[in-house]
Amino acid sequence: MDEISVLPEGSVTSPKGYKAGSTYAGLRTYSPDKRDLGILYSDKQASVAGVFTTNLVRSHSVTLCERHISSGLAQAIIVNSGVANACVGMQGLKDAEEMASNVSSKFGIAFEDILVCSTGMIGVELPMGLLRGGIANLNLDNNLGHEFARAILTTDKTTKEIAVSFEFEGQTISIGGCAKGSGMIHPNMATMLAFITTDANISSKNLQVALKEISDSTFNMISVDGDTSTNDTVLVLSNGASSTSEINPEIKEWRTFLAALHKVCEYLAKSIARDGEGASKLIEVIVDGASNLNDARLVARSISSSSLVKTAVHGNDPNWGRIMMAVGKSGAKVDESSISLFINEVCIMEGGLPVPYFREALIGEMRSSDVSIRVQLGLGDSKAIAWGCNMSEEYVTFNSAYTT
Amino acid sequence: MDEISVLPEGSVTSPKGYKAGSTYAGLRTYSPDKRDLGILYSDKQASVAGVFTTNLVRSHSVTLCERHISSGLAQAIIVNSGVANACVGMQGLKDAEEMASNVSSKFGIAFEDILVCSTGMIGVELPMGLLRGGIANLNLDNNLGHEFARAILTTDKTTKEIAVSFEFEGQTISIGGCAKGSGMIHPNMATMLAFITTDANISSKNLQVALKEISDSTFNMISVDGDTSTNDTVLVLSNGASSTSEINPEIKEWRTFLAALHKVCEYLAKSIARDGEGASKLIEVIVDGASNLNDARLVARSISSSSLVKTAVHGNDPNWGRIMMAVGKSGAKVDESSISLFINEVCIMEGGLPVPYFREALIGEMRSSDVSIRVQLGLGDSKAIAWGCNMSEEYVTFNSAYTT
Repeated sequence: MDEISVLPEGSVTSPKGYKAGSTYAGLRTYSPDKRDLGILYSDKQASVAGVFTTNLVRSHSVTLCERHISSGLAQAIIVNSGVANACVGMQGLKDAEEMASNVSSKFGIAFEDILVCSTGMIGVELPMGLLRGGIANLNLDNNLGHEFARAILTTDKTTKEIAVSFEFEGQTISIGGCAKGSGMIHPNMATMLAFITTDANISSKNLQVALKEISDSTFNMISVDGDTSTNDTVLVLSNGASSTSEINPEIKEWRTFLAALHKVCEYLAKSIARDGEGASKLIEVIVDGASNLNDARLVARSISSSSLVKTAVHGNDPNWGRIMMAVGKSGAKVDESSISLFINEVCIMEGGLPVPYFREALIGEMRSSDVSIRVQLGLGDSKAIAWGCNMSEEYVTFNSAYTT
Repeated sequence: MDEISVLPEGSVTSPKGYKAGSTYAGLRTYSPDKRDLGILYSDKQASVAGVFTTNLVRSHSVTLCERHISSGLAQAIIVNSGVANACVGMQGLKDAEEMASNVSSKFGIAFEDILVCSTGMIGVELPMGLLRGGIANLNLDNNLGHEFARAILTTDKTTKEIAVSFEFEGQTISIGGCAKGSGMIHPNMATMLAFITTDANISSKNLQVALKEISDSTFNMISVDGDTSTNDTVLVLSNGASSTSEINPEIKEWRTFLAALHKVCEYLAKSIARDGEGASKLIEVIVDGASNLNDARLVARSISSSSLVKTAVHGNDPNWGRIMMAVGKSGAKVDESSISLFINEVCIMEGGLPVPYFREALIGEMRSSDVSIRVQLGLGDSKAIAWGCNMSEEYVTFNSAYTT
């Protein structure tokens, strides 16, 4: 049975064989229940896959992470928020190594099996005194997934978590995930961290193939502000604790696994876009009828990241002239006379010409927290979906005052 | 003598042999002294060159313009603001042709020598009844350059005009220019119209070479919001009314002409960036030490168009982490450890590491209306300059309410 279920109150510790822990180490301003250091732990070595920022200026935590996943195996991920560990010279690598080393000693796992992630201010060294104390305070438990999800947040307003499951060989296979990110968010990738766990039995090679393909249609299709962080990381662990035989592309359940992983990644990606800095609406841009997939993605991302489209949605304004502008500047092959546009499925343009619609009704529709923009290019069969958010005055106020 | 002087109160009618006219045709909301239709006229056929929007969705006014400059000759430019004549199907071409035809009849010049430009709302047909009346009302005079500059504005707060001159063969050669544009402004090109006149004697072929080269380092290096309009046009007329021999690349005065044209284009481009929607500051980004010119331009434009950099400048925040983020995501070859950063010439990073500086003093400096960001990449000899503006709450408020 291929059905994929969403687990109530799911988290990264929903799959079997995972524990998490978190604490307040003092990297961020104190408030009751504040967390700024988290650990995600697999009871045994797990297959690991990762995708990382394309920014050439990158955190040393990312450097260490990439080095340690090269074996295809990992057992724990230590994450701090508050400080990005970027633009601090070689001290950044020493500090990331020391974090891994302290986790190794405390939990008795191999140094090379520990991955380090950091998010927060650029250009500030990690406060190692605080982090040493924080790591010493960490305790693991198999129901602390939600607290881990809180520990990784920076400017996020909400945690972003989900878990899904499907059946295989009479066992329940689960996939859990959590993410953070609300600014510096643009495809390839965002100030975005996402951690996904599964108890499926999958080789690291197949896991990497799955993650790359799915990231391209989920995490890499969101945009908050067009900026790309130095720290973006998505990591997936699969520890095989479900005790089934291996899931691989040779068996039909591979498609089920991909669909389940896609569901997790899409949910997390949309949650990040919805929680964009200063945002109150999720914008879903659906482009179909493109000549090829790349063109479909170019158009979808051009619309979802246009400041003028984002401010128009903020003002509940069905300003299709700006959408057409974004279509035309995208770099994709388009023919104005074959384009149709829909906002919340109300057709507002057909064959490149505006069509009559009840403007006040559409403005009313656009007040909802979900606005969809659909573009039919009329040239081929390719389709893509991108997600973004409205741009508000709060985005500007917030980012004028925040030192990253 | 190669000296280039700026003419006091210069305009597009400063060069010899040009007249202009303007009127209120009723395309925009009425206010006293409002203008929304303008004409720029050369007493005799002039050489013409133009560069146009790269947006695939483009105004039919642009289509007609491109067709009419293909002969290399033109005599008049008719410009309306308020309506972009874009996304209206083939009616847009008929309307642009009728505008040219009416100007042809009224002023007795050839249809093919008339260029049409439109700027304003997308998806609205030109109100031809109003435009016929407006064209009938136009009168030409050789001191109406300033009024023409007002007629082409949309959301601009100020007119943008300049004229410069230099001597050649005992005669004064003048170049005048005006421009409009404050939103949908991004390289290649902006919702930007610029009109440049000169009484120099230059072939249209050489004029086109000069305009292309200079646009790439001026108009194509500005960004307000990263969006690209359907209507961008820069046109240059040279009518030879200075009565000198031809200026061409074979004589040394060619460099003087290029320098003078560059001065006009750079002034207009910077004026557009400074008058960005909701902006109060001009940001000048200077990148040097790049491996090649393309990389220098990529980095400069990546910084000047980053929402996070623009909001930081708005908040007078020397947030160099965001500048480094923009350097790294630019697509250019960079090496973090050889980068130095300066804000208003205060060094804040050297060799990829932050250096101590008097933060409060720099914040004070950043309150001025001009903020410069200089990046030394330390890799080669190439240099580029880009211009942008701060992003303010007013930008969002304004663009949430305006239907383009």
